[in-house]
Amino acid sequence: MAAIGVMPEMNGLKQKSRRSAVTLILTVLTSSQSILIVWSKRAGKYEYSVTTANFLVEALKCALSLAALVRIWRKDGVTDDNRLSTTWDEVKVYPIPAALYLVKNLLQYYIFAYVDAPGYQILKNLNIISTGVLYQIILKRKLTEIQWAAFILLCAGCTTAQLNPSSDHVLQTPLQGWVMAIVMALLSGFAGVYTEAIIKKRPSRNINVQNFWLYVFGMIFNAFAIMTQDFDAVMNDGFFHGYTLITVLMILNHALSGIAVSMVMKYADNIVKVYSTSVAMLLTAVVSVFLFGFHLSLAFFLGSTVVSVAIYLHSTSKARR
Amino acid sequence: MAAIGVMPEMNGLKQKSRRSAVTLILTVLTSSQSILIVWSKRAGKYEYSVTTANFLVEALKCALSLAALVRIWRKDGVTDDNRLSTTWDEVKVYPIPAALYLVKNLLQYYIFAYVDAPGYQILKNLNIISTGVLYQIILKRKLTEIQWAAFILLCAGCTTAQLNPSSDHVLQTPLQGWVMAIVMALLSGFAGVYTEAIIKKRPSRNINVQNFWLYVFGMIFNAFAIMTQDFDAVMNDGFFHGYTLITVLMILNHALSGIAVSMVMKYADNIVKVYSTSVAMLLTAVVSVFLFGFHLSLAFFLGSTVVSVAIYLHSTSKARR
Repeated sequence: MAAIGVMPEMNGLKQKSRRSAVTLILTVLTSSQSILIVWSKRAGKYEYSVTTANFLVEALKCALSLAALVRIWRKDGVTDDNRLSTTWDEVKVYPIPAALYLVKNLLQYYIFAYVDAPGYQILKNLNIISTGVLYQIILKRKLTEIQWAAFILLCAGCTTAQLNPSSDHVLQTPLQGWVMAIVMALLSGFAGVYTEAIIKKRPSRNINVQNFWLYVFGMIFNAFAIMTQDFDAVMNDGFFHGYTLITVLMILNHALSGIAVSMVMKYADNIVKVYSTSVAMLLTAVVSVFLFGFHLSLAFFLGSTVVSVAIYLHSTSKARR
Repeated sequence: MAAIGVMPEMNGLKQKSRRSAVTLILTVLTSSQSILIVWSKRAGKYEYSVTTANFLVEALKCALSLAALVRIWRKDGVTDDNRLSTTWDEVKVYPIPAALYLVKNLLQYYIFAYVDAPGYQILKNLNIISTGVLYQIILKRKLTEIQWAAFILLCAGCTTAQLNPSSDHVLQTPLQGWVMAIVMALLSGFAGVYTEAIIKKRPSRNINVQNFWLYVFGMIFNAFAIMTQDFDAVMNDGFFHGYTLITVLMILNHALSGIAVSMVMKYADNIVKVYSTSVAMLLTAVVSVFLFGFHLSLAFFLGSTVVSVAIYLHSTSKARR
């Protein structure tokens, strides 16, 4: 330790502030995402094909990564770490997260046969637990007991904050609904943890190259989704039918948050991502009070208190790695 | 430490198991108390004077303490620690908890001008926080940061478990209602912590003597309450008017739980008492499912999860004393 000197300490500080910056950006982008969704719902129902929007999000992320790379190439020149060309060995795992998300999105259409939309919002909090479990199993990083306690609190707190008088319906979910919700939580958790594993496997590789390849496969899989789900609509009404200003803003926001998620995976981890998106959920509710005149419930205050304690416990308990 | 040897270790073990036993007994008695209250409500409204019942509870506790003392005197003889006679210096503080409870009970009638009964149930959870604050200030025992986090979680979890669709009304409580609720929480917390201070001040003094004197003043203050509140009813309809089997069971249960609370104060502390009564609240709800066909809400499951994590955190974090 004594031999390390000043440079790595400065790097440590730089890494810590980069970590905080990407986490903050992700939190802000995620909350504005939810606000855009509420706004677009208020403005009327979706008239555009969701699959084309998803494709454009991937394409935009790809373009932004490429633009960042061009800037880096001009500044530092092309090196082994930032060259775009890749090996089969590096690239072969990149389609896996995109494929997992595709399967999860397809399942999403079927779960609504068993659960209503508010119930699905509540069941989605199972993602928190599945991410924790898979993070520990796949990335082999141990969460301390206090951190596990904090993670359970985060899940309970988020669910409490979302409670409304009809939430008890979710307890009547049939077994098939529970199984699908758990499978979806595992798929989503696995995709997140697997992406982190891919990105972290080559720490010195430039994040923009890693993103570029991730998003290329995202584009391919989403093109497949357009063909199978919205082929007729796109052929008859055009690719951009029903697009409005809000749609464009949502695509922009999704692309930026997607990149922020990747950055969090590179410089922090999935656990930080889960905390960040949970705080975003609470922020959204508070902002909605001012923007849309929403009322905050007692359950929201209680849930926020529990989430705050969870964040405190997580941050005071050092990770045993 | 090395000089202490085996005996105190055995004493430590004995003390620990006594501590667990009184805590368990308090939990069971408190939950059966609530079940008796539900049962009595189902059987019809109270027809008896609550003040006469409270007086009988104090009298019964007094009699039970005296009976326990007689057994001890026969076995061990009368010593300085178990003699009933006392000094002004010892006894002068004993009326204070009884007086505090009396003031609190009188305030209870007025708070309902500002809050409805379910709202009052929710505000009563402020007792948890006030007990923690006063415990730290008066008994000068420091709770660790994790234990404070656990205590906040206990309060949030208990409140969450009690949520129902009309709970949001409590947010419309006027300022006077909040002030009264906080004053009542402070009175109740102060009475509890002060009782612990009195009992712990003389560790070698037999608990039954300490209880006897506490309950003598309890009887006096409750006699005062009968005179001021139910004098006419008692004079016209008799002391025992409206008593049923349930009333008798409730008096018996209140007397036993009162003694259990004293035991917890002697061998454990107010913090353990708060955890014990919170668990009792959850137990009551579960038992009511079987006894009265109640339904458990999603909020109940979430609240119970948070309370369980709170208990876990409290027990793993050693108190810095």
